[in-house]
Amino acid sequence: MSGQRVNRRVVLKSRPVGVPQADHFEIVESQIPELASGEFLVRNDYLSVEPAMRGWVNAAANYSDAVGIGEVMRAFAAGEVVASRHESYAVGDKVMGMLGWQDYCVTNGDPVRRKVLEGDLPLTLSLGILGINGVTAYFALGEIGQPRAGETVVVSTAAGAVGSAVGQLAKLAGCRTVGIAGGADKVRLCLDEFGFDAAVDYKDPNFAQRLAEACPSGVDVYYDNTSGSISDAVLRHINKFARIVICGTASVQSWDPWPTGPRPERHLLNKSARMQGFLVWDYEHRYEEAVGQLAAWVRSGQLRYREEIVDGMERAPGSIAELYSGANIGKRLIRLETGR
Amino acid sequence: MSGQRVNRRVVLKSRPVGVPQADHFEIVESQIPELASGEFLVRNDYLSVEPAMRGWVNAAANYSDAVGIGEVMRAFAAGEVVASRHESYAVGDKVMGMLGWQDYCVTNGDPVRRKVLEGDLPLTLSLGILGINGVTAYFALGEIGQPRAGETVVVSTAAGAVGSAVGQLAKLAGCRTVGIAGGADKVRLCLDEFGFDAAVDYKDPNFAQRLAEACPSGVDVYYDNTSGSISDAVLRHINKFARIVICGTASVQSWDPWPTGPRPERHLLNKSARMQGFLVWDYEHRYEEAVGQLAAWVRSGQLRYREEIVDGMERAPGSIAELYSGANIGKRLIRLETGR
Repeated sequence: MSGQRVNRRVVLKSRPVGVPQADHFEIVESQIPELASGEFLVRNDYLSVEPAMRGWVNAAANYSDAVGIGEVMRAFAAGEVVASRHESYAVGDKVMGMLGWQDYCVTNGDPVRRKVLEGDLPLTLSLGILGINGVTAYFALGEIGQPRAGETVVVSTAAGAVGSAVGQLAKLAGCRTVGIAGGADKVRLCLDEFGFDAAVDYKDPNFAQRLAEACPSGVDVYYDNTSGSISDAVLRHINKFARIVICGTASVQSWDPWPTGPRPERHLLNKSARMQGFLVWDYEHRYEEAVGQLAAWVRSGQLRYREEIVDGMERAPGSIAELYSGANIGKRLIRLETGR
Repeated sequence: MSGQRVNRRVVLKSRPVGVPQADHFEIVESQIPELASGEFLVRNDYLSVEPAMRGWVNAAANYSDAVGIGEVMRAFAAGEVVASRHESYAVGDKVMGMLGWQDYCVTNGDPVRRKVLEGDLPLTLSLGILGINGVTAYFALGEIGQPRAGETVVVSTAAGAVGSAVGQLAKLAGCRTVGIAGGADKVRLCLDEFGFDAAVDYKDPNFAQRLAEACPSGVDVYYDNTSGSISDAVLRHINKFARIVICGTASVQSWDPWPTGPRPERHLLNKSARMQGFLVWDYEHRYEEAVGQLAAWVRSGQLRYREEIVDGMERAPGSIAELYSGANIGKRLIRLETGR
């Protein structure tokens, strides 16, 4: 049955240095093989686009092996089981996981992260606020940031899929929240949609001054998704025992060669402060705990999110570069209409 | 009675930028005032010299206010109560604390850190292995480094008063210990006296290569007392979940202007690693716990130390610069023969 379907796949054509562009990928078609025993077929309905994908294709050392040339692009996707010879997955099950930028995924289940059980909520949320973005916010803030009521939490990429969640979770924890975002539209979104107490535009020529004004009691927690000069400015305001959560380095175009910046050691020492790298994969065993809590907040209206859904696989190759251009607002997803 | 004694005091004459030199200080004499009720008089027998004193006199932001011009140099010292109108301190009590670079200290007790109760051990130890150096090693390694048996612990300034203790405590915790020190003599001291499994000379033109060879399983804990290029080399070898304890920045001459170096963010992120500043003052409430454990290890011969005692207050003004020249081996102390 599945052998009759054509599978379009976005494969890596050449290895990028820095941010991957559309022409580092190509779309190829292939037949879907017959299912072996223990396999099932997922039809991807939504493909995810993450800033982290830059690292997944770069040759420089990272936390996982780079995607190989000619391989389908590693990506989260969500969809539905349309054929199964696997005892734990039935036709009609909704699943999400590392299913790749492609129409269909034949799998033994290993790349599936979870069945999506929140049938009352849109499937797209499993790739965003109830997926890697929300789960990242939940553990990065809760486990590394450890916010306490009354503290000031500063968030970079504050209008983004993770940053907007971090800000709202910090607010739920009783903190003063200060968002950093690029441009007036995103600053307004931080204030009006995501409830930040203050928001600062890093493109403002007086950014450092504005940041200082927004943090009259200093900074206790910094959710750092940018590195670079934005983070250097925040570091100058950290309080005693501050926690800096290193979650991304969006403002640094390349780590090869290794870029330089102001050394943090003396600041960390003087403030008994902590700078700690966060990878959501380290918390995989607690994924359902996070999703359950996040879903409850979504249902109660205490946790808001933005999505930016574009149609068609042909939008995938250029989508990582579009993320890094800073133009998008909300979680970027690609909707496929395969086989419907 | 105390009014008859002359007190020589080392006072700060001008504000240094970077490492204070002998001519930033001058020795002045004054009469000792009569004791008021609630005061007592300590005769300092030993003055301490710490790398941290650089920060105590610099104008740049630090964890404590800078010593004022004309004020006695802030310093640890140990000595004996020779007169008392304080109900908790009797003549003959041995005390240590922030008693300053001077012959005598009239005090209400606030600068005293503790009575020295280890009468079976030399008083000098209260300023070194049973003082700020040993206590720093104990909490920096135990609380921030959190070494586990079988892990690799790398120590900079490994032949120094704190580093040598860190290495030995890590060894007691079952770790592989790798010391970094300057010059063949200190490397030998690390191996022969302080039991490091390997020791590397940072002055070796092939330092980076030697360091890599000494850490075949990577680095789990790095006790960083230097910052700068030594630490940059270590950072390239950290393992998943590594802990970097920022305890000093001896290799950086000045933080004004703020020096640059390779950014650590991506390394910390890829390894879910932590870089944390450590100040021993944060653990003041647990000081006796540390001293008790350290004294037991000293008595059993499991914890060794080196002292370098020089005679006469006139040695004090130049002693911080001597520390930073890297020439000394062991805890630097100044012995006074006042009033004996």
